[in-house]
Amino acid sequence: MDKVCFGIDLGGTTVKIGLFTEEAKLIDSLEIPTRKEDEGSHILSDICEAIEAKLVEKKITRDNLVGVGIGIPGPITKDGTVLNCVNLGWGMFNVEEKLSQMLGGVKVKAGNDANVAALGETWQGGGRGFEDLILVTLGTGVGGGVIIGGEIVTGSNGAAGEIGHIPAVFGDDAETCGCGKKGCLETVGSATGIVREAKKLLDKTSEDSKLRTMSEFTCKDVFDAAKENDKLALEVVDKLAYYLGNAIAGIAAVTNPQVIVIGGGVSKAGKFLLDKIEENFIANAFHATKNAKFALATLGNDAGMYGAAALIIA
Amino acid sequence: MDKVCFGIDLGGTTVKIGLFTEEAKLIDSLEIPTRKEDEGSHILSDICEAIEAKLVEKKITRDNLVGVGIGIPGPITKDGTVLNCVNLGWGMFNVEEKLSQMLGGVKVKAGNDANVAALGETWQGGGRGFEDLILVTLGTGVGGGVIIGGEIVTGSNGAAGEIGHIPAVFGDDAETCGCGKKGCLETVGSATGIVREAKKLLDKTSEDSKLRTMSEFTCKDVFDAAKENDKLALEVVDKLAYYLGNAIAGIAAVTNPQVIVIGGGVSKAGKFLLDKIEENFIANAFHATKNAKFALATLGNDAGMYGAAALIIA
Repeated sequence: MDKVCFGIDLGGTTVKIGLFTEEAKLIDSLEIPTRKEDEGSHILSDICEAIEAKLVEKKITRDNLVGVGIGIPGPITKDGTVLNCVNLGWGMFNVEEKLSQMLGGVKVKAGNDANVAALGETWQGGGRGFEDLILVTLGTGVGGGVIIGGEIVTGSNGAAGEIGHIPAVFGDDAETCGCGKKGCLETVGSATGIVREAKKLLDKTSEDSKLRTMSEFTCKDVFDAAKENDKLALEVVDKLAYYLGNAIAGIAAVTNPQVIVIGGGVSKAGKFLLDKIEENFIANAFHATKNAKFALATLGNDAGMYGAAALIIA
Repeated sequence: MDKVCFGIDLGGTTVKIGLFTEEAKLIDSLEIPTRKEDEGSHILSDICEAIEAKLVEKKITRDNLVGVGIGIPGPITKDGTVLNCVNLGWGMFNVEEKLSQMLGGVKVKAGNDANVAALGETWQGGGRGFEDLILVTLGTGVGGGVIIGGEIVTGSNGAAGEIGHIPAVFGDDAETCGCGKKGCLETVGSATGIVREAKKLLDKTSEDSKLRTMSEFTCKDVFDAAKENDKLALEVVDKLAYYLGNAIAGIAAVTNPQVIVIGGGVSKAGKFLLDKIEENFIANAFHATKNAKFALATLGNDAGMYGAAALIIA
């Protein structure tokens, strides 16, 4: 029988559990709710129960389970210590040791969810074939991960890859970020930020725009209008691409990656957005870092499961 | 007899060669000129000659030489391939293999000079005791290095740690950098940039300043005046600290280092400058990265030799 591993994406609402072959094939997956009550104390036992049930269902013996990887929605150190995971109600403890004990000594490796997603995209997604990668996730917020030599850069407090909080906007244009700082990349790069920027521009100008005719609009509406050459919407997207291109040029001057993968809900705007970011990157990047490739993330919401599996078998 | 290694800092003008014990003690050093004629073809043989002579002088046998580390003033890949070292007249070749052959098979490890200096400061300098470090060198230009887990981050083209070329200044304030881009950190963080900023401010205002009474002034003059509370000079230093603090906050959001070491000629301004940079860092860094320590580089011009030795024995 083939060896297998589990890749687990532990989110604030659901836990996604993937069963992978050693050849990186996702053969089965399931979701269970994340029970946050009682300081999240049921979460790991719920996961163990699901794993045990899946092993029985698939007639997989313990000997053939090479390990369990897990992505956590919070900072985690290199040795697997969760520092403070408010999303789950967890305090500080070593999740690798605890989960391994609960599973009878199976190898467990853990990482921050965004970093683990970056590893997933490196292993089987948009960055496949590369080992030095930056993932930039443009969603409700802006997140990301840094991969060097095929491995996650964790950082001294598990806060490496917090790309959304790079200072990116200065002066009067800088909005306050959810983190409390002003002008973070997230304030302009997130779906929320894009809608806010569009609204600001609508208020500031009398420019004709499809967006002006809508009582409410989403980030997708902004991109759709921009793709139809709506001048105001294009201005919003160009500004976003400018800030992202500059910030990524800064990241490239630090780690000089081979590939930059753009993911998250906003990246559904596709090549239209990717090309604009790359254009701004090339205009602002140091010459020796300019040949970095740009790619779209391909694993979507499965990136976390893939990356968690990669912690074990990549 | 104790084991030894050589740590070599190959510069555009001189080659600094240090002899180190395995316990990281620098026991002897010498300098030879860098002969750049004939496409730099004499450089490695000059180095070999100096090494052989030193071994004879110190009665060190080949068995006791554990290796030779060398820092190169240009981009170099992980496997030791020099890509294009215009400073030396060198084309593309593997300097590790070549120098090792010339030395009869001794282990040779090479790195970019700025990155190697960062390793030196981590090993025996201002970042001693840490393994996740950023070195920011403020000199004629702005350079640096990134150390993660005690190892140099090289980047896909050997261009990691090119901190001077992070986009840092936007809008009308952005000056053109030596690299051709506008608004690089180097345009405001280098000694030249600091003098230029002071001159710009003198031209723009009629503010009284000691600097106005001088026909020419240096970066040191600007700091000396600022330390004596010269308002205009203070404004220049505060602006420098603002840009540096923001850029370092951006770097910290990428790699989350334990310590940030500030080196180069400008860092002779000491704690006065360090405190101002740290203040701006704290005001602009993501909360989980804020506890990074700030330290001054301590190895000065020897950082390259130390770091080169560290490639072999650290």
